[in-house]
Amino acid sequence: MPSLDALFSPRSIALVGASPDPHAIRGRMVSAVLDGGYPGTVYAISRSHRAIRGLSCYRSVADLPRAVDLAIITVPARYVADVLEACGEGGTRAAVIISSGFAEERGAEGRARQERVTALAERHDMAVLGPNGEGFLNAALPLRASFSPVLADGAPPSAPGKRARGVAVISQSGGIGFSFYDRGRPRCLPFSYVVSTGNEAGLSTLDVLEHLVSDPATGVVMMFIEGLRDAERFAPLAARAARARKALIVTKVGRSDAAARAALSHTASITGSHSAYEAMFRAHGALSFPDADRMLNAAAALSYFHDRLPRGRRTAVLTTSGGAGIWAADACVDAGLEVGPIDAATRARLDERLPSYASTANPVDLTAQGLFEHGYAKPLELLAASDAVDAVVVSCSMVRSDLITAEIDALKCLGARSDKPILFSAYTRANPEAVRALASADFPCFASGHDAANALAALVEYREFLDSLPGTTP
Amino acid sequence: MPSLDALFSPRSIALVGASPDPHAIRGRMVSAVLDGGYPGTVYAISRSHRAIRGLSCYRSVADLPRAVDLAIITVPARYVADVLEACGEGGTRAAVIISSGFAEERGAEGRARQERVTALAERHDMAVLGPNGEGFLNAALPLRASFSPVLADGAPPSAPGKRARGVAVISQSGGIGFSFYDRGRPRCLPFSYVVSTGNEAGLSTLDVLEHLVSDPATGVVMMFIEGLRDAERFAPLAARAARARKALIVTKVGRSDAAARAALSHTASITGSHSAYEAMFRAHGALSFPDADRMLNAAAALSYFHDRLPRGRRTAVLTTSGGAGIWAADACVDAGLEVGPIDAATRARLDERLPSYASTANPVDLTAQGLFEHGYAKPLELLAASDAVDAVVVSCSMVRSDLITAEIDALKCLGARSDKPILFSAYTRANPEAVRALASADFPCFASGHDAANALAALVEYREFLDSLPGTTP
Repeated sequence: MPSLDALFSPRSIALVGASPDPHAIRGRMVSAVLDGGYPGTVYAISRSHRAIRGLSCYRSVADLPRAVDLAIITVPARYVADVLEACGEGGTRAAVIISSGFAEERGAEGRARQERVTALAERHDMAVLGPNGEGFLNAALPLRASFSPVLADGAPPSAPGKRARGVAVISQSGGIGFSFYDRGRPRCLPFSYVVSTGNEAGLSTLDVLEHLVSDPATGVVMMFIEGLRDAERFAPLAARAARARKALIVTKVGRSDAAARAALSHTASITGSHSAYEAMFRAHGALSFPDADRMLNAAAALSYFHDRLPRGRRTAVLTTSGGAGIWAADACVDAGLEVGPIDAATRARLDERLPSYASTANPVDLTAQGLFEHGYAKPLELLAASDAVDAVVVSCSMVRSDLITAEIDALKCLGARSDKPILFSAYTRANPEAVRALASADFPCFASGHDAANALAALVEYREFLDSLPGTTP
Repeated sequence: MPSLDALFSPRSIALVGASPDPHAIRGRMVSAVLDGGYPGTVYAISRSHRAIRGLSCYRSVADLPRAVDLAIITVPARYVADVLEACGEGGTRAAVIISSGFAEERGAEGRARQERVTALAERHDMAVLGPNGEGFLNAALPLRASFSPVLADGAPPSAPGKRARGVAVISQSGGIGFSFYDRGRPRCLPFSYVVSTGNEAGLSTLDVLEHLVSDPATGVVMMFIEGLRDAERFAPLAARAARARKALIVTKVGRSDAAARAALSHTASITGSHSAYEAMFRAHGALSFPDADRMLNAAAALSYFHDRLPRGRRTAVLTTSGGAGIWAADACVDAGLEVGPIDAATRARLDERLPSYASTANPVDLTAQGLFEHGYAKPLELLAASDAVDAVVVSCSMVRSDLITAEIDALKCLGARSDKPILFSAYTRANPEAVRALASADFPCFASGHDAANALAALVEYREFLDSLPGTTP
């Protein structure tokens, strides 16, 4: 396998098929790279234009003054192989092929084109991503090598604290890959990479996984899988991920006949037996979920709490609304967690501080008054200090952000010191400012007590997997 | 049972315990009523103030110049019974007791206070809501008889079209009741009522249900239930709701020991056997879900599609992203729906219009290009016209709203004419403007293909329940 450094961390890029049209994919690719803060050298290659956004255009890859690390190719499918050939001969070590018109099309022609791409990638030992993909994002470099519209929105950046680890996404489908980014950003998920592998004529999902498992910026890898052509490599890669304590979160689609049919025409994938995939995931500690929200919730929990996984299932529920606490307790029990009574010593410490009408059983109901007077940080510190508590789920109103921001210093202190997971959740909508403030204190915030409970159950499942590995002392 | 008209649609209100303090609950109650557009007469009653926000204050209920329909009581618990007595003697027919300090408290005193409230409500035949609740919202009047902070946010109103029916919420917990409102508004759920019943010293959840089942503005009732003290009334009320084609969506909490313990101290509820409740709900067509999001998704589907329930499970999936279509098809099949091939005649009609690389199998993949050229309305019309299709699930990118707003007239036309449910969903985050535009065309928009699939399954379940009723011709 070629090195993927030239692909994901290139020192120079050629935009092959560049266009000034901001509405065409070719033009959006140019804007993405130039506006995304990429610090390396960029060349534009176009037969129709002499200059695009201040870049003088070269007529072909062969005309470039020096070899580039990465070619981003947006020319029509029938020209792609020639471009790739020229890249390989010129010493370019990696390519992203955005163009479609390959094996995903009906008929033999597209398939033949794709086989040529595969052969050229092998002959020149090039790292080739695609075709028929949406490219990738390397958030740290930074490099937006993708036309995905979700990268172009001007939302404020997420603000996780110091403990959260990077989350990488690998998806054949670019639409889905970048939708994880889009949906995860308001939750302050610190994305490291989003990679769309498309038809995988060159690099497969697992080739990219192999690279990301060694990436220091990545602690969690999410994968949207239509089919793996090299599934036998999954077990050793998952073992390597487990040794590095990097969690894998997967969904395998194409379970239904309709979906399997569609996958074939979408990225030419053979979806294979669902139960075989599920057994493989389970055996190797990959957490498998049917939908995006559960995947994102698990990713948030594993990113933020990788260094403070719960030692068991004993969960304390803290709330400011009786109804919300009851519902969250039910959700925890439904998710396989235990919500037993809090130990007497911890209750006594809580009783000292809280109003008489607050409840210090489990769930602990601070009441609105108790919250106004004492905030979240102190009661959470007392709960998390209990030997009878492995994790805390908080279910609170998040209509306003001021109750969180008012005690942000105490929360940051708690977030920096705590050695147990504390999962905040909103029973109302979550105010974005409150979510960002919590993230800055190293706490993710979930959209419901139900979501927090499921995320905590994922942490427990991952911890139990790690404990089951040979040579691990639970 | 007293009439609930004076409670929910009063011509005049007395705010008993009014305060000018905008931070205290007593003051927030004043602002809620005065700023909420209430068209009737409002009196303020206070011993400490001569005037509050332009209202001259009366020293007691007995001093009022005439009887009011509704008293909203926020005085401390120990004074509540005296106030209620004066209200009853003065001819006031309804009361909301916001104050806490009743049966939810430890000790005999609170319980005795609550028993007095119950006795007074009976003696004067008053409709009494609470105590220890957050009051209610009547959206049509309008009347905000609640201090809930979610009512105070300035978000733009939801904009459902003409077909959607009102959604009412009944919850013992005010925090949860109003959280449904808060979470449902961005989905353009047209709420008619939100009612927090609190400790239910007077009116029970089912008393309120009885009223709302007859309310012409309400088509769907959501209930958050800690315990029903008069569960034997559920069956006849559910039968009445079924005859009126009003769907019931419920969650019963307190399944776990911890939650049952908490419910007792929260609203003094005995939670009872979970399986008995579930059996009762199933037998009488109430759709039961474990979490708020599934409840809200079902409510959206039943509100918007009450008059076009699916005749069966045959589902067409329409997408603009191959991966999203595959995932949505899997979600449909997981939810018990059928995603079979589209009939040849319909495929031929679609093939005529769509690009060659679009797929007209099921899922139908318009591709981005097909969407730009043809929009959603025409392909949806063709799919919905097929005799082999009972419902359509759309899974699309919603980063931008312009693709929806550009064809809003065609979508409104489709929404007005269609006799099958068409459930839009976003695989990205859903742009709020796009959601409002779709709502104005009588289409709800779900947060994921998974959510849309589950909502459609709820429609199928409800339709099958209605078909199972004696005297129904399926």
